[in-house]
Amino acid sequence: MTIPAKPIYIHSFSHRCGDWIPIEEMQDAIDNQAAIHQLSRLGIQRFSKLQTSLNALITENLERSLGQAKLSADDIDATIFFSTTLDPYIQHSDVPMALHDLGITRAIPYGVFYNQCTNHTQALQLAQLLCAEGRANHIAVFGYDALDDNKISRILPSRTSVYSDAFISCIVSREVRKDSYRIDSIDHLYAPEISQYNRPEDALHFITAYSRRFSEICQQSYKNNLTSSNEYNFLITPNYNFSVVKNLAEIAGFPEDRVYRDNITRYSHCFSGDHFIALQHLEKANKTQQGNRYLLTAVGGFVTFSAVTLMRV
Amino acid sequence: MTIPAKPIYIHSFSHRCGDWIPIEEMQDAIDNQAAIHQLSRLGIQRFSKLQTSLNALITENLERSLGQAKLSADDIDATIFFSTTLDPYIQHSDVPMALHDLGITRAIPYGVFYNQCTNHTQALQLAQLLCAEGRANHIAVFGYDALDDNKISRILPSRTSVYSDAFISCIVSREVRKDSYRIDSIDHLYAPEISQYNRPEDALHFITAYSRRFSEICQQSYKNNLTSSNEYNFLITPNYNFSVVKNLAEIAGFPEDRVYRDNITRYSHCFSGDHFIALQHLEKANKTQQGNRYLLTAVGGFVTFSAVTLMRV
Repeated sequence: MTIPAKPIYIHSFSHRCGDWIPIEEMQDAIDNQAAIHQLSRLGIQRFSKLQTSLNALITENLERSLGQAKLSADDIDATIFFSTTLDPYIQHSDVPMALHDLGITRAIPYGVFYNQCTNHTQALQLAQLLCAEGRANHIAVFGYDALDDNKISRILPSRTSVYSDAFISCIVSREVRKDSYRIDSIDHLYAPEISQYNRPEDALHFITAYSRRFSEICQQSYKNNLTSSNEYNFLITPNYNFSVVKNLAEIAGFPEDRVYRDNITRYSHCFSGDHFIALQHLEKANKTQQGNRYLLTAVGGFVTFSAVTLMRV
Repeated sequence: MTIPAKPIYIHSFSHRCGDWIPIEEMQDAIDNQAAIHQLSRLGIQRFSKLQTSLNALITENLERSLGQAKLSADDIDATIFFSTTLDPYIQHSDVPMALHDLGITRAIPYGVFYNQCTNHTQALQLAQLLCAEGRANHIAVFGYDALDDNKISRILPSRTSVYSDAFISCIVSREVRKDSYRIDSIDHLYAPEISQYNRPEDALHFITAYSRRFSEICQQSYKNNLTSSNEYNFLITPNYNFSVVKNLAEIAGFPEDRVYRDNITRYSHCFSGDHFIALQHLEKANKTQQGNRYLLTAVGGFVTFSAVTLMRV
């Protein structure tokens, strides 16, 4: 159970994607025609390919997040960087160089990895611990993922979605800032048993175990918040295809009109970035108002499940 | 300042290196003859090359750590995995598979990266936060680094040392276990300005800035513990060459006989593993006794400085 003793707030989102490429033009499209046809039918249309340097992405987005928050670089007490795809042999000095140039010179840097598409909720968990222990008032949280098409296919297992490159940033603070969301709970659940069902013939076992655990993390979150699914204005899942999102919504107990699906077709699955991008879009589209509540669910590497609840303040 | 409100303890160390190779047989030895000659003269003799799978390393070492701690897999509330060199496209499902096989099935997994050779102190910092907030009683902490000789040279910048592959593990607990060290403080300091001095002609600027920051983190640690260097039985630095370690000892205010150097020649620099391996050796050599105090210093990616103080309980 992870309801913060002292509230923390998330705000000042920014993101950048790269060139938008139709999924039919994916590098290994010819080898995956059936999958691409199916994904397209289920709402997955295009993906982003980032060519911009990590350094430039940090500068652009963190500057924007700081500007929105009306904070100076020197207000930042810690940075939390997360990534799934970062090549440690190439990009290991980009972050300190970019932070130095921005003037973020005293913030203790943290790096979060290895939980794939729950890296962002693990980063929020760390941010919450740092705030709770009084180590930080303002934390810059940012994530970067750019897939190397020569190393791995962009198609997720079981044709769930297509990976899309993105850089995202936001600020976590101990105080309310403009357009803030209060983080009411962060829950994680580990299900290593699922990693054994990785052969095509295990599909049924996989789906059963996955559904059971997804239900478990939702119920845990409702219980910790003394709520039911009825109290949330939106369920925000990762940008999987329409069919998968529909199934997840059913398990979580959400009717169709309270499931955020606007970004599936335009973004595909931006690793750990989907939720932060969705919150930006909801804000811009004036679809949020004070008191609105959100349930954000994610699954990392098919083994770590997360549920975060937010209230717009 | 990071003196834990409630004490936490580190214990049950284990490690595994690979084949020991003389530095003269390094893959790029021919291109680096002068450096290798100098390093050899300064105590760096050999490095470890790991060929064992990450999965097998986790199983072997965590089993040993759990055994030493007399804990069962089910006692573990969280795992913290750290790495500098991990290839995210190849080894992304090894950890959950290995943990599942060990019976560590309910521990929330955390992954720490991007601070290179302070990843282990960042992992300890996270462990301390999790314990302080009551999220965990026992945390399995483990790190893995195996350098790809085709991607990068094993020689550290400025001929400081040679990278050596290693897997390490230990347990962090909220209660005293056999052969425990109490963690009295964990300090980090960020110095991104150093990353700009990366050309050979910046060497003097680099050394000056580095020394100043190293002194700063030591003084911060002494101050937070209300101690001076006199109160510590051993300074444990990473396994840099004898000349570098001598300089660091001088800056930290330690005489030669209280600087741990036994592992320089036999291990070289095991990324984030040197300190945990040193503690194991001190223990086996009966060089520790109740009440002994240790200052552990590290520098990650030439920008994050850390100082951890321990007391043998």
